[in-house]
Amino acid sequence: MRIGVFDSGIGGLTVLHAIREAVPGHDLVYLGDTARIPYGTRSPLTVVRYSLCVASYLYQQKIDALVIACNTATTYALPALRAAGEQLGLPVFGVVEPGVDAALAVHRSQGIGVMATPGAISGQAYQSALKRRAPDAVVHAIPCPLLVPLVEEGWLDGDVPRLVAERYVGHLRGKVDTVILGCTHYPLLRRVIGEVLPGVNLVDSAQATADVVRRALGDLPGQGTRQYLVTDNVERFQAFGALCLGGVPEPVSWVDLPPAIAPFVLGEDGANPAPAVEPTA
Amino acid sequence: MRIGVFDSGIGGLTVLHAIREAVPGHDLVYLGDTARIPYGTRSPLTVVRYSLCVASYLYQQKIDALVIACNTATTYALPALRAAGEQLGLPVFGVVEPGVDAALAVHRSQGIGVMATPGAISGQAYQSALKRRAPDAVVHAIPCPLLVPLVEEGWLDGDVPRLVAERYVGHLRGKVDTVILGCTHYPLLRRVIGEVLPGVNLVDSAQATADVVRRALGDLPGQGTRQYLVTDNVERFQAFGALCLGGVPEPVSWVDLPPAIAPFVLGEDGANPAPAVEPTA
Repeated sequence: MRIGVFDSGIGGLTVLHAIREAVPGHDLVYLGDTARIPYGTRSPLTVVRYSLCVASYLYQQKIDALVIACNTATTYALPALRAAGEQLGLPVFGVVEPGVDAALAVHRSQGIGVMATPGAISGQAYQSALKRRAPDAVVHAIPCPLLVPLVEEGWLDGDVPRLVAERYVGHLRGKVDTVILGCTHYPLLRRVIGEVLPGVNLVDSAQATADVVRRALGDLPGQGTRQYLVTDNVERFQAFGALCLGGVPEPVSWVDLPPAIAPFVLGEDGANPAPAVEPTA
Repeated sequence: MRIGVFDSGIGGLTVLHAIREAVPGHDLVYLGDTARIPYGTRSPLTVVRYSLCVASYLYQQKIDALVIACNTATTYALPALRAAGEQLGLPVFGVVEPGVDAALAVHRSQGIGVMATPGAISGQAYQSALKRRAPDAVVHAIPCPLLVPLVEEGWLDGDVPRLVAERYVGHLRGKVDTVILGCTHYPLLRRVIGEVLPGVNLVDSAQATADVVRRALGDLPGQGTRQYLVTDNVERFQAFGALCLGGVPEPVSWVDLPPAIAPFVLGEDGANPAPAVEPTA
């Protein structure tokens, strides 16, 4: 099978890395929408439109399953992408539910923190999922818009990331035993976040998402192919991608995304994908 | 006259503010391409394409002059925008040359620093202009990618911006007497940058650009209209725009930019805008 994985940039490579380990036999194609990163500070409708556009392109590349390796895109676009996927028999996986599962597996009795982009926090995806699954948990949801630029700058250690982390989540010390790193970039800042919140379980959804994919799709014998596509800055993607992947991603190609085709377009109500085929009378 | 002013986001409002003071009689229409911010970490060709697309839209809104209130867009897209403007009789102004003029007016004998986005620094626009005008000056060009996200987060003061500024330009103490704030967001961090570089002239191009516009176009009696357009997040633009403008920008409308029309499209060589009208035989 051919699995498409997408993110707004390099962060989703942490998820791709885990999937590659979990199901090495499948072919993987990764798309980083680096021309339009970051998704995390954009409006919900814009995130949905960008996500549908990326998914439309990947579907035309003959993928058999789609993983949304971006928390903001999962928050806003999962319903629309699943609706489109159902019309095509294309399974679609997000990163939020697996992250919540992983957090609840280690959560003891104190509160749960969620660190994420402003978009993911406003969209309430983590908060709603936690509320459904653990209605008594006290959830502290913290938007952390500077962490993605910090990672993209490669400042993973030292005074600046530590002070930024302190400012965002220092006040959670003693109030939480578990924190969800609700953005695929944040695992790269695990060390400084751990210094600010000693003894707290830091949960990222990469491994949990890969486990869900393996349970749903199984693996194949042998070694699948890997392919990387970006909408801007191939060299930058290779340089920074190595941070997430433990090795330079290759081969990387640049793509200019064409407009989405049905069913990956919003209907006139702005809410649901248009049907792939016009209903017959 | 109707003057179009554009930036990738809110930073260009510092330029708009100065233009509003310098030529209050003209009508001003500002476009912030907030759906695709930041331009400063994108590849040159992508910046040119985005800039042409924005200019094409503004031209269709009947502007009589265009100000590129973004250093990265000026760096890469000024030649293409001027080539398109010449076909249409549309004057096009950038922010780099005025900033260089203002810096050389106060520069004494030490080196000159240039703080800008990675895109503007790689594009060498400031370095080339300084080299032409002051061939003996020692220029220190420093890419500062975290400053735009810091401003957009509203962290203009305190430990984090001071440490970030220290890390970027602390090593220039004693080496420069003048620093160009080569990004329209940076004037909002003037105080912390001044603390890191005491006694150094901090030059921003907003006022200098407004002076160039006034000399070229003159003013009109009365009070012109103001109009603000953004490609995403109207509320966020209003909230953060107030920082640059000293008051909430209004009226603000959302626009979905259509594809550019000739002459605001690149020819097949990727270098120059296609002619507005096919040459006749």
